[in-house]
Amino acid sequence: MNKQIKLAKRPVGMPDESTWTFETSAIPSPKEGEFLLKQEYISLDPAMRGWMNDAKSYIPPVQIGEVMRAGSIGTVIESKHPEFKVGDVLSGWGGVQQYLVSTGQGFFKVDANLAPMPVYIGTLGMPGMTAYFGILEVGKIKEGDVVLVSGAAGAVGSVVGQIAKIKGCTVIGIAGGPEKCKYVTETLGFDGAIDYKNGDMKKELRALCPKGIDVYFDNVGGEILDLALTRIRRDARIVICGAISQYNNTTPIKGPSNYLSLLVNRGTMQGMVVMDYAPNFGKAAMDMGTWMAQGKLKSREDIYDGIENFRETFTRLFTGEKMGKLVLKVSE
Amino acid sequence: MNKQIKLAKRPVGMPDESTWTFETSAIPSPKEGEFLLKQEYISLDPAMRGWMNDAKSYIPPVQIGEVMRAGSIGTVIESKHPEFKVGDVLSGWGGVQQYLVSTGQGFFKVDANLAPMPVYIGTLGMPGMTAYFGILEVGKIKEGDVVLVSGAAGAVGSVVGQIAKIKGCTVIGIAGGPEKCKYVTETLGFDGAIDYKNGDMKKELRALCPKGIDVYFDNVGGEILDLALTRIRRDARIVICGAISQYNNTTPIKGPSNYLSLLVNRGTMQGMVVMDYAPNFGKAAMDMGTWMAQGKLKSREDIYDGIENFRETFTRLFTGEKMGKLVLKVSE
Repeated sequence: MNKQIKLAKRPVGMPDESTWTFETSAIPSPKEGEFLLKQEYISLDPAMRGWMNDAKSYIPPVQIGEVMRAGSIGTVIESKHPEFKVGDVLSGWGGVQQYLVSTGQGFFKVDANLAPMPVYIGTLGMPGMTAYFGILEVGKIKEGDVVLVSGAAGAVGSVVGQIAKIKGCTVIGIAGGPEKCKYVTETLGFDGAIDYKNGDMKKELRALCPKGIDVYFDNVGGEILDLALTRIRRDARIVICGAISQYNNTTPIKGPSNYLSLLVNRGTMQGMVVMDYAPNFGKAAMDMGTWMAQGKLKSREDIYDGIENFRETFTRLFTGEKMGKLVLKVSE
Repeated sequence: MNKQIKLAKRPVGMPDESTWTFETSAIPSPKEGEFLLKQEYISLDPAMRGWMNDAKSYIPPVQIGEVMRAGSIGTVIESKHPEFKVGDVLSGWGGVQQYLVSTGQGFFKVDANLAPMPVYIGTLGMPGMTAYFGILEVGKIKEGDVVLVSGAAGAVGSVVGQIAKIKGCTVIGIAGGPEKCKYVTETLGFDGAIDYKNGDMKKELRALCPKGIDVYFDNVGGEILDLALTRIRRDARIVICGAISQYNNTTPIKGPSNYLSLLVNRGTMQGMVVMDYAPNFGKAAMDMGTWMAQGKLKSREDIYDGIENFRETFTRLFTGEKMGKLVLKVSE
């Protein structure tokens, strides 16, 4: 049987028991030109929360009754498609389900011998691509820049900071709790970390970036974005990648009160969506694969088990109870 | 005697009677290498409000006891400087006073035969330069763009919109009251105008920009910035030139709640300071002078008389009771 998670109701605030339904149905059969994919891992990302809102965005919202959208990786177990063979490992937009049939649209083959499957939905998947293009193309880092990144122990932030280190920047991360901060500095090699859950963030930021910051990569929004704005230097770039602190708001989003710092410092605040860079994902994967092989880019996945545990696991994105890329194993 | 306006106290909210002192002193005498300038007109600009705050900004704040900083234009009436002759007309940073001695720093000669003096502190001065570089270099307009500009009847906004029209854009202005809106469309040739003091701005913006906007030139901040964010198109540029709605706040500045529209639409919000473009002011003045001669760029000044009336006149910037560039005549 095939287990699926479908959107039942648009959540207000944090998703709860009523948000999704858990359904069981027969495993579908591929028709001519299709294949059957057995999904192994599902990617859990903050952006999924946005896809549940009935609002104009960069992609249409998930519809009520639809399988919850998610990145995934799995293995072809039956094929009537000339280009996909049994045993092929595919990454793409498989949604939160164990099996699916597809014509291949939205999927691409990966070499499961080169990296573990979860890495293909993490550092070599959308989060890694977001980090790569966000910090290089939007953040436009150059050697010697001071880079601040929030969500620094997370799937995107951890890669952002490591790429910035590779490119010769000074990198300060913001993360929640001493364990994550230690991970960021000791394992990932950031120059400093600020624990937003403890201590005086403003004072620590001043101490760690006495001359200010050139690039702020924002995954969180809210007060941390406002704090970063107080420390930007002339011609600073702020990359707006996400705003996890605001996604479950039941009140209006908190806009950055200090945005006039952009005027004073001639700063730029720019939004990004990773799909825009799809034509260059190959180059990025090659660069990041090389850095991983050289030990310069570390990847950490926090893997939970069981599609039945989707909601509880998804919630960890917002409570912060996870380390690195959050992944759900859905195969049995 | 020389009449001067000096900063007496840092205002909280709107400046009042206690903010400045009016002083009278002897007209100073130039020493070797200096000249005596008789000032004719003082430029009144929203940015002056920011210069009064004791905050890190793009220039140091005006100090208590100092002559209030302002752009100005005047005539050399005595000179011991080899490069400045009696009768030369100079524009620069003369402050709110009738006479001053200077070594020439911060002043440059203008040809008073080519344009009336007030135009040199308006369309051919800082406000015009702000408009020119803001819309061309930061806004990066191209033919066919839909451009929205707030403060559309003002010194900067009126020039922004006219330049955008010259460059083949569709231009919508936001201004306060029917008279200003009529001026913006009928005299300046904008394609549409929205009266923020009357009617449903959101509905009107949708009607006038059904396909959204490519560039928003922001002089006002607050709710209008937030509204503009709801209508930006893919790859839109927002030029942060000022935030007149927020300058006299006694509460924290209202940040743009809708800033995540930058993410969805891959938009850029960038701050600017006109002084950065000083090396290219000559080229801009040539372009704008040509457009004025061709009748494509109209300039309107609202001139009040008497340095004694500085505060009342300055207040008009924030109440909106003026049409075009606000200027104070200070010579007697």
